Amino acid sequence: MKLLVIGANGTIGSHVVNEMKDEYEIIHASRSASDIQVDITSLQSIKDMYNKVGKIDAVVSATGATHFANLTEMTPELNDIGLRSKLAGQINLVLLGLDYINDLGSITLTTGILMDDPIVGGASSAMANGGIKAFVKSAALEMPRGIRINSVSPNLLEDSQEKYKDFFMGFVPVPGKRVGMAYRKSIQGAQTGQSYEVY
Amino acid sequence: MKLLVIGANGTIGSHVVNEMKDEYEIIHASRSASDIQVDITSLQSIKDMYNKVGKIDAVVSATGATHFANLTEMTPELNDIGLRSKLAGQINLVLLGLDYINDLGSITLTTGILMDDPIVGGASSAMANGGIKAFVKSAALEMPRGIRINSVSPNLLEDSQEKYKDFFMGFVPVPGKRVGMAYRKSIQGAQTGQSYEVY
Repeated sequence: MKLLVIGANGTIGSHVVNEMKDEYEIIHASRSASDIQVDITSLQSIKDMYNKVGKIDAVVSATGATHFANLTEMTPELNDIGLRSKLAGQINLVLLGLDYINDLGSITLTTGILMDDPIVGGASSAMANGGIKAFVKSAALEMPRGIRINSVSPNLLEDSQEKYKDFFMGFVPVPGKRVGMAYRKSIQGAQTGQSYEVY
Repeated sequence: MKLLVIGANGTIGSHVVNEMKDEYEIIHASRSASDIQVDITSLQSIKDMYNKVGKIDAVVSATGATHFANLTEMTPELNDIGLRSKLAGQINLVLLGLDYINDLGSITLTTGILMDDPIVGGASSAMANGGIKAFVKSAALEMPRGIRINSVSPNLLEDSQEKYKDFFMGFVPVPGKRVGMAYRKSIQGAQTGQSYEVY
């Protein structure tokens, strides 16, 4: 069984890889230094990735940038970073990837706690997360050939606590293992259209 | 008190105008045939609108396009319609409009039931709605000068039932009056960061 992990080198992607690597042939994709290089803000780059990878059983997207800034300093242009990357980029992984996913396969996107439990500077990130969550819930009605789609919404990870603790005051960080298991549930479970919250 | 209604000629906008017109000086904006013409997919058009309108007490956005298509026929380009219009367009009304809203004023955006209760063909619309809802919840933390922000999520309106009933099977349409009152709650109430669901 083949699992394509986009953002495989990131904090979340690494936990997905660790969780699934004994059972799946994992294809690592990321912006740099992976089996496959991909820039999810480029339609051509996504198409090239799927062409190289061929047929797969599961896709995990653990990638997507958003810009953090105080609301009064947020511009349409800075908000566009999250629109193009974490939001449209992940949705385009679905729209352009469906033909490559085997029957009864799955695709799992990544959102995040800021849509439910906001912080200062996180409005653009919340937007991307909320858009992905709602897209997934609706798209699940129409996925062809028994393919399922879910999203995972992680809290701050223990691994990232030192780096981001000043922005996430009072958030109780979660172990990467728990986050990895949410992706496992999406990949190997039977549910579709769900948002798995690891809070 | 001045209320700017963007999309004032639409089904929802008309109910907002009817609900508030006896108490507010209403400035009608829409793509055509209003006091002010505006295309919310154009940053320059939004800037021009606010420049013409000047200081206001409340903004209601009852506008924003999304493309409806079966998921397997949805392309990144078609999904971009909703990204640019209903999602980024409404958010840019906030980002570019804050300086024009008086202290203790409000801005109200529009989402829709499809983020919570999806239908075939509605994934892009759900995305835009979910993105707006989450943005509003987060942005409310940081609105300056006591300005509030909320969104209204209408069900199918009774006025639109004949036109859309084949897409909204089993949805119980809501009276326009109830929808108008949700906007009133946002404009005149004290809450912020809320999603008012008229289901």
